[in-house]
Amino acid sequence: MSEGEMSIDRKKGEDWWATDIIEMRPGLIRLRGYAIEDLIGRISFPAMIWLMLRGELPDERQAELLGIALSAAIDHGPQAPSIAIARMAATCGVGINSAMASAINVLGDVHGGAGEQALGFFGEIAVSMDFGRSLEKAADERLDRYFKDEGGYVPGLGHRFHPVDPRAPRLIELVRRFAKDGVVNGRFADIAEAVEANVAKRKGKRIPLNIDGATAVVYGELGFPPPLTRGLFVLSRSVGILAHAWEQSQKPERNKGPLPREWLWSYRGTKTRKPVE
Amino acid sequence: MSEGEMSIDRKKGEDWWATDIIEMRPGLIRLRGYAIEDLIGRISFPAMIWLMLRGELPDERQAELLGIALSAAIDHGPQAPSIAIARMAATCGVGINSAMASAINVLGDVHGGAGEQALGFFGEIAVSMDFGRSLEKAADERLDRYFKDEGGYVPGLGHRFHPVDPRAPRLIELVRRFAKDGVVNGRFADIAEAVEANVAKRKGKRIPLNIDGATAVVYGELGFPPPLTRGLFVLSRSVGILAHAWEQSQKPERNKGPLPREWLWSYRGTKTRKPVE
Amino acid sequence: MSEGEMSIDRKKGEDWWATDIIEMRPGLIRLRGYAIEDLIGRISFPAMIWLMLRGELPDERQAELLGIALSAAIDHGPQAPSIAIARMAATCGVGINSAMASAINVLGDVHGGAGEQALGFFGEIAVSMDFGRSLEKAADERLDRYFKDEGGYVPGLGHRFHPVDPRAPRLIELVRRFAKDGVVNGRFADIAEAVEANVAKRKGKRIPLNIDGATAVVYGELGFPPPLTRGLFVLSRSVGILAHAWEQSQKPERNKGPLPREWLWSYRGTKTRKPVE
Amino acid sequence: MSEGEMSIDRKKGEDWWATDIIEMRPGLIRLRGYAIEDLIGRISFPAMIWLMLRGELPDERQAELLGIALSAAIDHGPQAPSIAIARMAATCGVGINSAMASAINVLGDVHGGAGEQALGFFGEIAVSMDFGRSLEKAADERLDRYFKDEGGYVPGLGHRFHPVDPRAPRLIELVRRFAKDGVVNGRFADIAEAVEANVAKRKGKRIPLNIDGATAVVYGELGFPPPLTRGLFVLSRSVGILAHAWEQSQKPERNKGPLPREWLWSYRGTKTRKPVE
Repeated sequence: MSEGEMSIDRKKGEDWWATDIIEMRPGLIRLRGYAIEDLIGRISFPAMIWLMLRGELPDERQAELLGIALSAAIDHGPQAPSIAIARMAATCGVGINSAMASAINVLGDVHGGAGEQALGFFGEIAVSMDFGRSLEKAADERLDRYFKDEGGYVPGLGHRFHPVDPRAPRLIELVRRFAKDGVVNGRFADIAEAVEANVAKRKGKRIPLNIDGATAVVYGELGFPPPLTRGLFVLSRSVGILAHAWEQSQKPERNKGPLPREWLWSYRGTKTRKPVE
Repeated sequence: MSEGEMSIDRKKGEDWWATDIIEMRPGLIRLRGYAIEDLIGRISFPAMIWLMLRGELPDERQAELLGIALSAAIDHGPQAPSIAIARMAATCGVGINSAMASAINVLGDVHGGAGEQALGFFGEIAVSMDFGRSLEKAADERLDRYFKDEGGYVPGLGHRFHPVDPRAPRLIELVRRFAKDGVVNGRFADIAEAVEANVAKRKGKRIPLNIDGATAVVYGELGFPPPLTRGLFVLSRSVGILAHAWEQSQKPERNKGPLPREWLWSYRGTKTRKPVE
Repeated sequence: MSEGEMSIDRKKGEDWWATDIIEMRPGLIRLRGYAIEDLIGRISFPAMIWLMLRGELPDERQAELLGIALSAAIDHGPQAPSIAIARMAATCGVGINSAMASAINVLGDVHGGAGEQALGFFGEIAVSMDFGRSLEKAADERLDRYFKDEGGYVPGLGHRFHPVDPRAPRLIELVRRFAKDGVVNGRFADIAEAVEANVAKRKGKRIPLNIDGATAVVYGELGFPPPLTRGLFVLSRSVGILAHAWEQSQKPERNKGPLPREWLWSYRGTKTRKPVE
Repeated sequence: MSEGEMSIDRKKGEDWWATDIIEMRPGLIRLRGYAIEDLIGRISFPAMIWLMLRGELPDERQAELLGIALSAAIDHGPQAPSIAIARMAATCGVGINSAMASAINVLGDVHGGAGEQALGFFGEIAVSMDFGRSLEKAADERLDRYFKDEGGYVPGLGHRFHPVDPRAPRLIELVRRFAKDGVVNGRFADIAEAVEANVAKRKGKRIPLNIDGATAVVYGELGFPPPLTRGLFVLSRSVGILAHAWEQSQKPERNKGPLPREWLWSYRGTKTRKPVE
């Protein structure tokens, strides 16, 4: 049926779900204008991710750098609430998709949002540079404001567990290499290092860039907006979540709790009492 | 616009979401045929739950018994994966609804399905009695089949932690009282006790009814189908999940893992190695 | 093993999960200090909810009013995203707990947070009255600030669909009755009506209290803090979510989409193109 | 602290969360034995996924083929319940991680399990061939059993919407190419084609391989067990879910329902009535 013949109400229904991402007709699937069979086998998985999120194909070096950042944050072990949740869920009699969902769901502002905050922070410094500030000046002013009004941890710096997070220097090294090759311009790497240096001067000790800061640098270099970095982190951590859910599902445990089976928890509430009749 | 004037396609769209549960027009909300303002303040919350699920109002004694079963399974502490997940999620920067969702999601076949299995099991005995078997005979035959073909834990009996689950005898006592008052007929309580007695004879020791068996008795007495008992358990345990998520959210912890902060986990995988270049 | 004999590390593990809500030992479950078998059958389901969230038993009239508010917000039909999600999920081959989880998960700031915002708003007026302002003055000043700095919809007022939401006046009528009986003091009902009247004067037309405003009044009267009202809304709406998931699961539909099966969606993206080789 | 000095109970706690996947110490993260900084930038994202799930590094051609399958199932538009849920959730005031979780959660047995079923089906034919049956015989016997005992849709064949799913022939063509290069052996492609041919003979018309059948072929060729194919599908579809959640979140809609805003749903329940006083 041609669109001209479609009733106004059916069109209204179909418009309610309008999208720029995918076009479909019987026997035809197009993503962002490309027939899917023209994409399959011609572009890498990270390039496919890029196309879906940004609407245009990256060149393969850009896609490669995206894949590098996606690989870096893949897992941080079962003390991370997301991973622990995936493993416990896998023992409760739900499908692996649901074990993953319960876990992904907790990648919220605190557990999954640090990269977004870091990229937002670096991005404000970038804007300040666009208005003519030097890198050092822009970083210094932003940090002045930060320590005066906001406080807490500087976004993208420091780790409660790792004195130096081994993923961060490796990612920055790779960004520098991609910048040398002209794939990115290295500006967010500069900003991150300027922030790190400025904070070191203020504190008298280096608080090194962490994985959230380092992936924010990559995503910033590649032009992703801050809120999408949380989505990219979800794609990345989903892999570790799946690996742990899968490993756990191969074991016979049922209803796995957080502590060894014969342990309990400390009760600290009201003493024993009776309801008044 | 009267329905007569509605286009075929709009009607098709509206029919796609047809329901028997709720009718709405501007200024009007009817649940199962009752104007909502006629229900609010006239029936109890458990009666409202019953109406929504079954389509008819219960009498208030039936609703009271439903409320009793809903109250009984409300919490089993933070060693239950659902409760642990709620508490961890509450530290990850998501809303209390999302903390609850991650937890409710794991009330699957293993963590949330025991009542459903118990009611299914008891129900098969009830059907056998409908065909003329005595209670003892019907229970015995079903258990014969169980130990021959299925094995594992008898649905509704035994608890890994409680020698006697204190909730179960209390619920059965109340079912007996409601049966004496004619609210229910006591048949599922009889069946559960016959199963318990038969298993005790086979095993030489009593494996007492647990909370899943006892709530299955209540829901069976009240006429709920087995799959709905899992839904009712979700409503019940949601209260404990909310209480724990809320308590946890009042504390300053962030990204709470399953073990004390400075502990790790044991690594048992492949020894240290290098990728071959 | 007595606590004195427990190792420091086991105690550390058990303390990591400390709670004031539930105490457990083999054969013993206590909620907030009460043996669970002393609670079951003696208090209503809403009283149980109150005890779990607040730590103390309410009197039964308070519990009754809580149950009334929980009943009021139970469902708003399948055009609400939460209900639509529950129904679609029920056709995808997941357990009813997971269908409920996907739905509850979306009761976020926009879909589930209006009551929280309304109670916060009313509460600020209450605090202002504690500092000696009259009701009218306190409401007027808060609304001045609102229209000057915040804008948007006044929390708790107006409904996109219902000219008057039939649940709201009924709830306020019941609060007035409970206030007359001394169960609550009626202060939040006064505040809500003062806000409504003040906005009517400013706008030249009445924008009536909605369900979120009215339940916020009840929860405020009963002393619940604003963030818990979202949790209570989740408990309430879970019932409608369960009813719709259950109804849908009785039908043969598989992978139910949002529109009738033969409809699609409008594609508005980039025109057909080919990847450059 | 050396393990020798660790208390028995701390070790017990840490063993509770034992894993083969990740080893961590301050400043050190190893995945499957490899220091993470040795992996980052040296292997592709699909190779990282493989390593996490299988424990060993693939060669890069195997990883490439995995990436191809992950790219193929990335999106099927907003009539799929998962995508519709992601878009609705994105309008409800939850983080993008939670919008994704509600959607991923519904990739259950019906919406996400078809690949798993197809691979299980093809795998049984493969086992039969291992015991000496010819391909045609093995497929024929399995299908005999299928049409006799199981019925319904043959796993991996046919599509309600696409006469020929354009993704499937393209994937098989690529599997053939990879088989020619010795990356895989082409056995599952043979099986899928034998199943398709056998069914065509039985039905008198071709019911072509669909995306689930085609990705099952790829995953089978690469040696993934059937239940993991659902996990891989989740990773793949997560990209489409993210793209749609993100696109939707850029629009001003709030609480997006499934139908245009002024439409309702058809009510088919009990006629208007009043509670009996």
